[in-house]
Amino acid sequence: MSAITNTELLQRRYNVMGKSSPLFYEKPLHLVRGEGVWLYDNDGRKYLDVYNNVPHVGHCNPRVVEALYKQASTLNIHTRYLHDNIVEYIERLTTTFDDGLSMAMLTCTGSEANELALRMARFYTGNQGIIVTDFAYHGNTEAVAELGTGFMPEAKHTKRVKSFSIPDSYRGISGVAESDLADAYAAQVQQAIDEFEAEGINVAGMLVCPDFANEGLLTVPKGFLEKAVAMVRKAGGVMIADEVQAGFGRSGAHFWAHQWYDLTPDIVTMGKPMGNGHPLAGVIARADMIEAFSKEAMYFNTFGGTPVSCAVGMAVLDALQEDRLMENAVSTGAYVTAGLRKLQDKYPLIGDVRDLGMFFGVELVTDRATKVPAIIESRRIINLMRERGVLISTIGVTDSILKLRPPMPFQPEHADLLIATLDDVLEIVSREMAG
Amino acid sequence: MSAITNTELLQRRYNVMGKSSPLFYEKPLHLVRGEGVWLYDNDGRKYLDVYNNVPHVGHCNPRVVEALYKQASTLNIHTRYLHDNIVEYIERLTTTFDDGLSMAMLTCTGSEANELALRMARFYTGNQGIIVTDFAYHGNTEAVAELGTGFMPEAKHTKRVKSFSIPDSYRGISGVAESDLADAYAAQVQQAIDEFEAEGINVAGMLVCPDFANEGLLTVPKGFLEKAVAMVRKAGGVMIADEVQAGFGRSGAHFWAHQWYDLTPDIVTMGKPMGNGHPLAGVIARADMIEAFSKEAMYFNTFGGTPVSCAVGMAVLDALQEDRLMENAVSTGAYVTAGLRKLQDKYPLIGDVRDLGMFFGVELVTDRATKVPAIIESRRIINLMRERGVLISTIGVTDSILKLRPPMPFQPEHADLLIATLDDVLEIVSREMAG
Repeated sequence: MSAITNTELLQRRYNVMGKSSPLFYEKPLHLVRGEGVWLYDNDGRKYLDVYNNVPHVGHCNPRVVEALYKQASTLNIHTRYLHDNIVEYIERLTTTFDDGLSMAMLTCTGSEANELALRMARFYTGNQGIIVTDFAYHGNTEAVAELGTGFMPEAKHTKRVKSFSIPDSYRGISGVAESDLADAYAAQVQQAIDEFEAEGINVAGMLVCPDFANEGLLTVPKGFLEKAVAMVRKAGGVMIADEVQAGFGRSGAHFWAHQWYDLTPDIVTMGKPMGNGHPLAGVIARADMIEAFSKEAMYFNTFGGTPVSCAVGMAVLDALQEDRLMENAVSTGAYVTAGLRKLQDKYPLIGDVRDLGMFFGVELVTDRATKVPAIIESRRIINLMRERGVLISTIGVTDSILKLRPPMPFQPEHADLLIATLDDVLEIVSREMAG
Repeated sequence: MSAITNTELLQRRYNVMGKSSPLFYEKPLHLVRGEGVWLYDNDGRKYLDVYNNVPHVGHCNPRVVEALYKQASTLNIHTRYLHDNIVEYIERLTTTFDDGLSMAMLTCTGSEANELALRMARFYTGNQGIIVTDFAYHGNTEAVAELGTGFMPEAKHTKRVKSFSIPDSYRGISGVAESDLADAYAAQVQQAIDEFEAEGINVAGMLVCPDFANEGLLTVPKGFLEKAVAMVRKAGGVMIADEVQAGFGRSGAHFWAHQWYDLTPDIVTMGKPMGNGHPLAGVIARADMIEAFSKEAMYFNTFGGTPVSCAVGMAVLDALQEDRLMENAVSTGAYVTAGLRKLQDKYPLIGDVRDLGMFFGVELVTDRATKVPAIIESRRIINLMRERGVLISTIGVTDSILKLRPPMPFQPEHADLLIATLDDVLEIVSREMAG
């Protein structure tokens, strides 16, 4: 327990980190402990964590912590010496992919993984252009910030990035029939390719999160992504799937979210849940791409793929498998969705409920017909939920989509608490709207 | 102990990591354990580690491992919640700097720290040009690879980077008197500034490692760096000190290598030794620069500055202080240097011995008068040393400078073993050269 008050701690934080370092909630949470799907604050109060996907197999998972401790006590060294762990870990990891994606480069963060994917795609194709959605975020380094069409300063000035509208079946495109949406969005990708060519840049690749998570966990018009990837490849580019949020079994039936589609990416990037909070991330790609790039660039990452990181990574895979967490994502995931749909029947505020395994998006609108985003209400809801001990957040272009993405050991009893609390809060907010 | 042979492990590594992922030594080492300044291979053989600076306070330092275990068992979460550790850690860290460098942003790797420094310098100055040495390496992301004049592919094509000759008192510049060297190197910096301005780019900053470690742990002509920084600032740029290798007390008398000079950088980046192998790195900068950048860029790093990373960082600071490792860097450092100078008296192969605390560069030449780099001999020496159980490497433009950079708990008894083994190996190689 901390002896200082939250106000004092916040002031000291401002002094050494500045006032713009992001904090959640109107009244920031001061956390001191985590266990499974629970977090505890400095007053001993407990919170159900329905937001954090990094503690993938549960906060402070004992199996992962023991693996970390055991290897950190034995040897922690870079990859310019031989060690069993990195070889065994990549061998295990690559079995989760389709043929062809057989080689890996390990990094520490998702930003580093996306950096490496971009360098590799540009080196391999000889081209510079990258296509993303118009509300993308893929990390915080400069080349990756250029892809950050959501809000990153570098994205405003770059000539190397073009975007297409977020492929959103719920909102669609004005004047386009639902059955034509896939073609309409794909036409925007073709337009980006053509514009690049006209500017003498040419397309190196398309980089998207397969479940379009930051964009709002979209329901993607069927066939769109396959068409778009074919266009990009025809123009000489490659397909990069950013699985930093979606990967490692979160989507339930598949280990990787891109496996829901009829396509195999050329490069896949991964991160957040990979080390259950330990800084572990990486790139899996076609062997010929990695060989060609590595030979030229002599890529080396001091902390990437250490025996400790790989021991942790293997413990996460063990926990996923032995605790049957993908099966849980399917069954408990469906249970959560059913609960959310009941709330949708009760509250007009809920315009759409979307899910992919243990990941849920609840789009809030002030009017179901006009689909006006319920921006103020969304903000109010996440703060009321926090006051009542349930942690969620928002996503989407106007931050009006509730983001529910709990640790994978989330059980039906936790879902009951989530749904009951959300029911109370929706009632309050609906009443305020009416009043 | 590993059950598989090194040949089998190497083949499996090639299969999943490719053939170009870097490995040390002609016969790669298969390590299984580390303790203090010692590493052990899969045959139970022990090696004196005179290369690795990442295990700064010793391999598997128990104090650091216990801090890691304790915090990883309690809470590991990102910085959008309040936590004591990050605030306390940055407060402690900033006390090691001069006034003005009072705010920090934490990352996971040195590449991420340099990325952030470049984004910040470019944002703050509104300019794009960066000045580095002509044999620089500062990391592996694209914008940082552009600075990699040593060998990175991106450095060949960028217009945003210009370089000056490595400021080397030992080799100097042909036709320039030693007393004029500082001015001659500074004139190259001014030329880079002028060229940038002529091309309409303008200088955002100069980024150098204050001990010019990769360049060969150079003896910098007195006054050069202060002059160069003044020129860069006059042109509107800032000074970025890359302390990723040199920092955290390695240089002995000072906590940071830039403190040997009469200057205060605007931004300092740090990494490798910071977490004793745990992926921890960061940027310390002027508060006004961090505030301005953060407000615009909304920088967030998922694994940067977690309670676990900061607990580890604090344990490293504790170990440095309580084990008096900076004092040891001064005393044992001087003892190593004395031993190396005796070898220099004995073997003409040693052209120059340079040191900075617990970091040593031994420049090898086939002829002291003409200073021809002893490239083949350097390579032979590090492999013979490895066979005799002492791990060192090479640096510099032609890889002909022995790089000695042991963990900080290195003692005189270890120095004796190092010097005796190097004596044997130098005798063998000198005999081979003569024969």
